[in-house]
Amino acid sequence: MFRHTSQLQFEAKPEKPDAHYARKLQELIGGAFGEMTVTMQYLFQGWNCRMEGKYKDLIMDVATEEIGHVEMLATMVARLLEGAPAQTTAEMVGKDPVVAAVIGGMDPQQAIVSGGGPTLSDSNGVPWNGRYIIASGNLLADFHANVAAEAQGRLQTARLYNMTDDVGVRDMLKFNLARDTVHQNMWLAAIEELQEDGLETAVAPGALFDEEHAEHAGSIWHLSDGTHGAEGRWASGPAPDGMHEFSYLQNPEPLGGKASAPKPDPLLYATSPANLGLIEKAIKKLT
Amino acid sequence: MFRHTSQLQFEAKPEKPDAHYARKLQELIGGAFGEMTVTMQYLFQGWNCRMEGKYKDLIMDVATEEIGHVEMLATMVARLLEGAPAQTTAEMVGKDPVVAAVIGGMDPQQAIVSGGGPTLSDSNGVPWNGRYIIASGNLLADFHANVAAEAQGRLQTARLYNMTDDVGVRDMLKFNLARDTVHQNMWLAAIEELQEDGLETAVAPGALFDEEHAEHAGSIWHLSDGTHGAEGRWASGPAPDGMHEFSYLQNPEPLGGKASAPKPDPLLYATSPANLGLIEKAIKKLT
Amino acid sequence: MFRHTSQLQFEAKPEKPDAHYARKLQELIGGAFGEMTVTMQYLFQGWNCRMEGKYKDLIMDVATEEIGHVEMLATMVARLLEGAPAQTTAEMVGKDPVVAAVIGGMDPQQAIVSGGGPTLSDSNGVPWNGRYIIASGNLLADFHANVAAEAQGRLQTARLYNMTDDVGVRDMLKFNLARDTVHQNMWLAAIEELQEDGLETAVAPGALFDEEHAEHAGSIWHLSDGTHGAEGRWASGPAPDGMHEFSYLQNPEPLGGKASAPKPDPLLYATSPANLGLIEKAIKKLT
Amino acid sequence: MFRHTSQLQFEAKPEKPDAHYARKLQELIGGAFGEMTVTMQYLFQGWNCRMEGKYKDLIMDVATEEIGHVEMLATMVARLLEGAPAQTTAEMVGKDPVVAAVIGGMDPQQAIVSGGGPTLSDSNGVPWNGRYIIASGNLLADFHANVAAEAQGRLQTARLYNMTDDVGVRDMLKFNLARDTVHQNMWLAAIEELQEDGLETAVAPGALFDEEHAEHAGSIWHLSDGTHGAEGRWASGPAPDGMHEFSYLQNPEPLGGKASAPKPDPLLYATSPANLGLIEKAIKKLT
Amino acid sequence: MFRHTSQLQFEAKPEKPDAHYARKLQELIGGAFGEMTVTMQYLFQGWNCRMEGKYKDLIMDVATEEIGHVEMLATMVARLLEGAPAQTTAEMVGKDPVVAAVIGGMDPQQAIVSGGGPTLSDSNGVPWNGRYIIASGNLLADFHANVAAEAQGRLQTARLYNMTDDVGVRDMLKFNLARDTVHQNMWLAAIEELQEDGLETAVAPGALFDEEHAEHAGSIWHLSDGTHGAEGRWASGPAPDGMHEFSYLQNPEPLGGKASAPKPDPLLYATSPANLGLIEKAIKKLT
Amino acid sequence: MFRHTSQLQFEAKPEKPDAHYARKLQELIGGAFGEMTVTMQYLFQGWNCRMEGKYKDLIMDVATEEIGHVEMLATMVARLLEGAPAQTTAEMVGKDPVVAAVIGGMDPQQAIVSGGGPTLSDSNGVPWNGRYIIASGNLLADFHANVAAEAQGRLQTARLYNMTDDVGVRDMLKFNLARDTVHQNMWLAAIEELQEDGLETAVAPGALFDEEHAEHAGSIWHLSDGTHGAEGRWASGPAPDGMHEFSYLQNPEPLGGKASAPKPDPLLYATSPANLGLIEKAIKKLT
Repeated sequence: MFRHTSQLQFEAKPEKPDAHYARKLQELIGGAFGEMTVTMQYLFQGWNCRMEGKYKDLIMDVATEEIGHVEMLATMVARLLEGAPAQTTAEMVGKDPVVAAVIGGMDPQQAIVSGGGPTLSDSNGVPWNGRYIIASGNLLADFHANVAAEAQGRLQTARLYNMTDDVGVRDMLKFNLARDTVHQNMWLAAIEELQEDGLETAVAPGALFDEEHAEHAGSIWHLSDGTHGAEGRWASGPAPDGMHEFSYLQNPEPLGGKASAPKPDPLLYATSPANLGLIEKAIKKLT
Repeated sequence: MFRHTSQLQFEAKPEKPDAHYARKLQELIGGAFGEMTVTMQYLFQGWNCRMEGKYKDLIMDVATEEIGHVEMLATMVARLLEGAPAQTTAEMVGKDPVVAAVIGGMDPQQAIVSGGGPTLSDSNGVPWNGRYIIASGNLLADFHANVAAEAQGRLQTARLYNMTDDVGVRDMLKFNLARDTVHQNMWLAAIEELQEDGLETAVAPGALFDEEHAEHAGSIWHLSDGTHGAEGRWASGPAPDGMHEFSYLQNPEPLGGKASAPKPDPLLYATSPANLGLIEKAIKKLT
Repeated sequence: MFRHTSQLQFEAKPEKPDAHYARKLQELIGGAFGEMTVTMQYLFQGWNCRMEGKYKDLIMDVATEEIGHVEMLATMVARLLEGAPAQTTAEMVGKDPVVAAVIGGMDPQQAIVSGGGPTLSDSNGVPWNGRYIIASGNLLADFHANVAAEAQGRLQTARLYNMTDDVGVRDMLKFNLARDTVHQNMWLAAIEELQEDGLETAVAPGALFDEEHAEHAGSIWHLSDGTHGAEGRWASGPAPDGMHEFSYLQNPEPLGGKASAPKPDPLLYATSPANLGLIEKAIKKLT
Repeated sequence: MFRHTSQLQFEAKPEKPDAHYARKLQELIGGAFGEMTVTMQYLFQGWNCRMEGKYKDLIMDVATEEIGHVEMLATMVARLLEGAPAQTTAEMVGKDPVVAAVIGGMDPQQAIVSGGGPTLSDSNGVPWNGRYIIASGNLLADFHANVAAEAQGRLQTARLYNMTDDVGVRDMLKFNLARDTVHQNMWLAAIEELQEDGLETAVAPGALFDEEHAEHAGSIWHLSDGTHGAEGRWASGPAPDGMHEFSYLQNPEPLGGKASAPKPDPLLYATSPANLGLIEKAIKKLT
Repeated sequence: MFRHTSQLQFEAKPEKPDAHYARKLQELIGGAFGEMTVTMQYLFQGWNCRMEGKYKDLIMDVATEEIGHVEMLATMVARLLEGAPAQTTAEMVGKDPVVAAVIGGMDPQQAIVSGGGPTLSDSNGVPWNGRYIIASGNLLADFHANVAAEAQGRLQTARLYNMTDDVGVRDMLKFNLARDTVHQNMWLAAIEELQEDGLETAVAPGALFDEEHAEHAGSIWHLSDGTHGAEGRWASGPAPDGMHEFSYLQNPEPLGGKASAPKPDPLLYATSPANLGLIEKAIKKLT
Repeated sequence: MFRHTSQLQFEAKPEKPDAHYARKLQELIGGAFGEMTVTMQYLFQGWNCRMEGKYKDLIMDVATEEIGHVEMLATMVARLLEGAPAQTTAEMVGKDPVVAAVIGGMDPQQAIVSGGGPTLSDSNGVPWNGRYIIASGNLLADFHANVAAEAQGRLQTARLYNMTDDVGVRDMLKFNLARDTVHQNMWLAAIEELQEDGLETAVAPGALFDEEHAEHAGSIWHLSDGTHGAEGRWASGPAPDGMHEFSYLQNPEPLGGKASAPKPDPLLYATSPANLGLIEKAIKKLT
């Protein structure tokens, strides 16, 4: 169960409104790597965790924090939209090209649909959706997804940081950047700890290593014509999991037979010589 | 530019058809972490890479391989659907409950839309979409996303491996598992190499560390009531990036002011005492 | 079965083109609360209605009208796009900032995809989809959804009304506003009538009142720290349905046990101490 | 900012697992009218509310409760999936038709993707998305949407209640039914209060009544051939808003001119006699 | 403007209910090539047509018919769902495997969401969306899309025809098949007429033939290793448009330079040697 | 299996960057008729083809070419974005209206998400999805879809050609136009060849002509009031398939009975007089 306080986790006050920027910030609310994604991803991971204790408790701590980040951004967007043009645009466009440009670059739904507030969409107005999250039950696989989400989140925040010089907006983003730093470090630490605790290997899931085709578990296939692919440490030597050896196949050849689909079922009307008779009959009957 | 050979990278021949399983395999074609995702993710990362050399060449090698994985799975699905029931179901359901169950569990679009072939959808029939991929230009952030994708992919493949005892299907999956192993290891190695090459730090992006609010870049906020969250190595000591120190805030308090939206624009018709007069006037005028 | 006349229900002639506004009007065509939604929502409600007579006939009357509203808006959008810039933009942007702003604010698909006509999308270009409609068979629940749709529709129309001073556009919107008014009133009247006819109670569905946990059917839980939530008429006294009594729980406590997921199935590879042995074995076997 | 306790708001313990039912319950998590929708709808309405006080505080109280409902359902789904078949299906299908049927009716992603847990999707596996919510800033319009959501939610819960006889599941659903009852009543009461407080009229928004075409603000157009549409109270007499009079147009005729699109821009290549010359020229030049 | 009669264009009465089949028929309502698609595609093409006369009038005739096809299918689905199991499934599954299979194969939303009626989705429950339609203003391009839609529609109807032996359902499908036949023929005839009227050439749009690179406008590139691609009439001789000559390039080589992305902007944090200094500085400053 | 060369099929070098145009070009990457669609459509058609030989080999040749087209466009977009504004927008907007307009018209995700590269979305930022493609197994139906895709693709490319005067961009588009020309011609030729080979008739699928209702397989229903619909060759005479005769029904009447839904299941709570008793009972019990 959850409780809410109307105080924000961190202040979200722009110096002055900026309708263009309010659109861009939508990316951090409802983008694939926005705060909504980490909120729901961590909540579902916590609820789906099969092991009571430190990992689950950590996940729920951070998940709960993230809801508050959506709140901070939603508040910031509404404040950035204060006083955004809501009137006869044709006249204004003709008079003032800067206003015209602002109107052109606004998210129209922030005005028409939300009345000057945020939507649950990204910076192109595409709605957030539930396929952005993953909660597989395997903590190693999921923590890697969490590192990835925090890394992309911090990257997008950093880009957005450069796109404004509003001191108030930047102050909030400095907090967001810091939280993305600690969360990235934290999931990296948790990945190490999973392995130290013997719960997972470097590769997820820690299973079926003895059933997979061992001869293909270390080789990289050279299928593009770049000449430098073999220069990295992935081309030879021990793999990070300590269980496999890397190699680089300079001239790989296909191992399988011809790609082909099975013979058609006449009732599904695939084009096929086997159906020739059917069509001739159909035509004769009719003509 | 690409070239194609009609030989499969690895064989994709089931012992016998299995229409139920053909539906499940869709997850590896068009699921959020299926082969289509890694194909397009790596292609766009390669095309968006800002540095010629080993990283870009590696990405294009693996991207090119992954298109062939979609091909293997598409071929396998078509073969698993050979002879799947395409006729009067009502009668069949009444006569044979096993056939009935098979029909019930099939993906109807594999028959009605594709005529016994795969669709570009997941195991629930939801179409694959372009928001599943990420190609940010920052290799560290993207390689973490790649590890995550390969980890989830191997996990799903492992689960699917247990859901069949068909020797032919399992033979192909043993190859897929092995490829997911080497690709997971490979991206992990590439992450290490990025740091060894001094191109990135542990945290992505390697920027703005001196502008973010340093006092919030190491602390974990205890916002759920689980008591074990502080027991992991993320609660104290140096963070993986070697630049931050972890701490655990047992009783965190909000730092921001009240969440509130700015005063409304009358032309957007938010409900507000400020608009009281307008409504009264509207009613009076009309009645 | 339907018939069509090429006369519009109401005139849709702008004084002059306005490409910016053509984009905004898309919200009323293909937005979540646009004309497409009420068209398909009412059609499916009519077809799914389980009671011949006045309700069903009313629904079909209004559904049929709404198709004509999509037609009016589609016509208006095409006319607003007449003469919109279709040429070399780089040069034009450099020369005339107002033209530049217009081009920047246009919906590119109205030109590239529709050749100067409307799309079936909202003002951000997101396609309309079938999950926007509801037709549950329960008229009370559905009529509430209809009031909601007409209210949001009228609200968005009102906002759009202020965003233009084109006399022709405004003339059409004055008609749309009026239709949204009567339709809103009409569904409100139909809700009253359903209850007067004894077909429904105030709460939908009129069922299972004696099975639901009665002690939780009137209380509001104080879970946020705002101090004014108890000041409304929802905090005490009889509820609108005449069957329940409101109360306000100032200090609610959770009633359930700990949120936890069941023990994992080893074949699904959740991270868990139960699987420790498996991983150790896997590693040993391989190394 | 939010806080979390690991106790559930209400118990969520099934007597025994039921994988079929776990799929159906997804509707209440990620369906258009599931708990995720009310959670995010109320949160965004609260954050977008332009008036401090009882309405906003109420919205935040209920929003915070709803996150806990997602948690209850997510927990229930995981428990219903305990022990669901994760093994070789072909053999099992052949042996036991009941098991076969269960497998056929399961959501494959609950196993393959979530490892025995819930997804953020509806009962057909379609992901939840942000366009399901509305937070317009106009409380009357939004509260109508809230009544609609609670009514559809209670209706779906009631249908699901009949689809199980598991005492534990039913116990939780009895709580959910009760909460949907009080929330439906509560939003109805809030709608009344908005009008008593003079903040809104019966029709949303309370604006532009004197600009809309008054002669079309009360009439229902008879456009389908059902003969009973005029028998309800919407066909004559005062409308619920007290400001309009209903009427029923038995033989409505279109008021607008012909639907037509403007003359084409040659650079957009619409088919048109105006472009005839261009094509002839193109052919001549080439041949 | 539209009018509606409550008589169906053709009868839609199944002999007896069949809940499985009701799910499959959804493909013809809300699938990518279902009746909803042709309805909206033709309506938008008619509204977007830039030439009054026979083409536009034909489009509107057929568009109006198609709304009635959605109505027929919606009615059929509701009737096929009559008496479908709405009760305690666990018990029923245990007792009767046939009933179990039926329940497993049903669309759960047809019961839970629509109360025994159709949804606006396909046979996998994915909602219909507005990107399925095209109305470009170019009649040749659009009529090809119409032929394609009618061909896929007739193909899916034919497959569904074989999946039932219900005389009533088949009677309706015989009508649908016939309508798909005439509509397919009709758009093919209209394509011929467009060219006879000199409005379009064989290739759409009839423009820019003298600007495109003529040397690449007739050659097929042999990029896969199949050896029979040159055996068709597309490999040599005059092309259908009478303006081009076909050829087949046995050993095509790339004509462009290396695929590469431009040098990175430091503020976007692409990984690049150019940014090396920045990262070093960041680390130094912090540690 | 596939192989890749890092040389582009054709050069993709703009004279100078143009961030506006980079957004528009997204339509050709991830639009419904962009290169991604033809790539995946042809690949799946090839893999699903039930007949070895010239048709399948042709499909795979062209499919493999199309992946290279995505590559060309992705490269072009990245180059068009070089130097696009990534800094403090508020200041820039105030100073230079042209820059302001450029920023307003940019795709924000090309900067924030992709770091100056393409996304897998259309020109409105809506992600590409797998429902855009069709691979039915019936080659006639699919080749019609291919003609349609190439026609729309060439049309959109032609429109985009006029929207730039950059010599480098135009050079690439001249190649794209040419490829769309030959591919359109090629699929038209393949449609003729299918019929010459006796594999298909003019109408797809070549089946069930003797079972469909023959009396409805040639008539066009006059359901809109345009008076010119009967003036085309579709109104009388032989149909293109040589098997049917066209006719035009001036005054068509519905052939079916009343559209109605079956009597409701009480457990699904449709509003119905049949449920009246239930509701009364529910109320009595409670009050």
